[in-house]
Amino acid sequence: MLKLYYAPGTCALATHIALEEAAAPYEAVPVDFGSQAQRSPEYLAINPKGRVPALVTEHGTLTETPALLCFVAQRFPAAELAPLSDPFALGQIQEFNSYLCSTVHVAHAHGRRGTRWADDAAAIEDMKRKVPATMTECFKLIEHKLLKGPWVMGEQFTICDPYLFTIATWIEGDGVDTTKLPHVMEHRRMMLARPAVQKAVAAEGTQIP
Amino acid sequence: MLKLYYAPGTCALATHIALEEAAAPYEAVPVDFGSQAQRSPEYLAINPKGRVPALVTEHGTLTETPALLCFVAQRFPAAELAPLSDPFALGQIQEFNSYLCSTVHVAHAHGRRGTRWADDAAAIEDMKRKVPATMTECFKLIEHKLLKGPWVMGEQFTICDPYLFTIATWIEGDGVDTTKLPHVMEHRRMMLARPAVQKAVAAEGTQIP
Repeated sequence: MLKLYYAPGTCALATHIALEEAAAPYEAVPVDFGSQAQRSPEYLAINPKGRVPALVTEHGTLTETPALLCFVAQRFPAAELAPLSDPFALGQIQEFNSYLCSTVHVAHAHGRRGTRWADDAAAIEDMKRKVPATMTECFKLIEHKLLKGPWVMGEQFTICDPYLFTIATWIEGDGVDTTKLPHVMEHRRMMLARPAVQKAVAAEGTQIP
Repeated sequence: MLKLYYAPGTCALATHIALEEAAAPYEAVPVDFGSQAQRSPEYLAINPKGRVPALVTEHGTLTETPALLCFVAQRFPAAELAPLSDPFALGQIQEFNSYLCSTVHVAHAHGRRGTRWADDAAAIEDMKRKVPATMTECFKLIEHKLLKGPWVMGEQFTICDPYLFTIATWIEGDGVDTTKLPHVMEHRRMMLARPAVQKAVAAEGTQIP
């Protein structure tokens, strides 16, 4: 049985939803960020990066959301969460998820985890001030160029959808004007109508704006 | 024929090497960052993100290094650049490449492209000051935990190797003490002995420390 380590409000929700969509046998284990459990020797033995998500499989542990999403799609092919045998179509999925992890999630993180990249309090405040602008720029690209609709890749629901949904639940908190993002907001509403999403959100106690 | 848009000194080198390793038919097209060609209307029509790499295929354009590397492996399976049919083994490859793009490359970028995340000159200087520490931390994890040796995934050369090599050519410039990284440096030497690497490096005119 797979074991997913998560914390509420983090990108682990994307993998949590994907596991539900795949009807995968799994256990979800919360990591208490309040008590810094992600830095405990026990958790660092599971994931030396001290972050979530981490997915323990029968072959070992995997981390990094794009990797976990692809693993779920490939491990449970009946759920048809990715066009696994089409190099270009799969490439588009990896491209979207890679953009989310390396650009969008990183832009968001500058509002909360600025100490990763700077030490001065003034620098960290300056990073925070820029988050609404950088996240708005990212979501404008998603709204106008990347989100094909109704799902990220068009008619087919894929592993891009739980990941976009997860990050899209952060944008009000990041100061993004959601009235300019009708497609993203419609995507969020459609996601919330799916039983798998409802189940993962309820299990984590995620706050949806 | 594939067309790879690149600029010297960027992560596009990883895909360039992978295309050479795969003996793929491709053309490499330089984008002149000196004249800000990546911001020209012509290039933004190819890649609206205004960055490299971008790979033009017969089905459309793909961006983001982890996606391009996976595409090359899947499109040219005879080169055996990834264990495509093993979900866990492929998951490990995606995990490594995802870490490089979302954590290591991002840490490096704070030394040169701090204006992405802050506006104050003092904040940008503070980010620069922290790069040696963050890149050292990333490469300690790679040296001691992630790089199995001799190649990233062990005996088999994969799409992780060109990507690690590419970022490892930046670390002297980032103030990382390479004497503490014998495995990473041996990996760089082994990469430089491969004809495909030599060809891509020479074509780009990449400076190897």
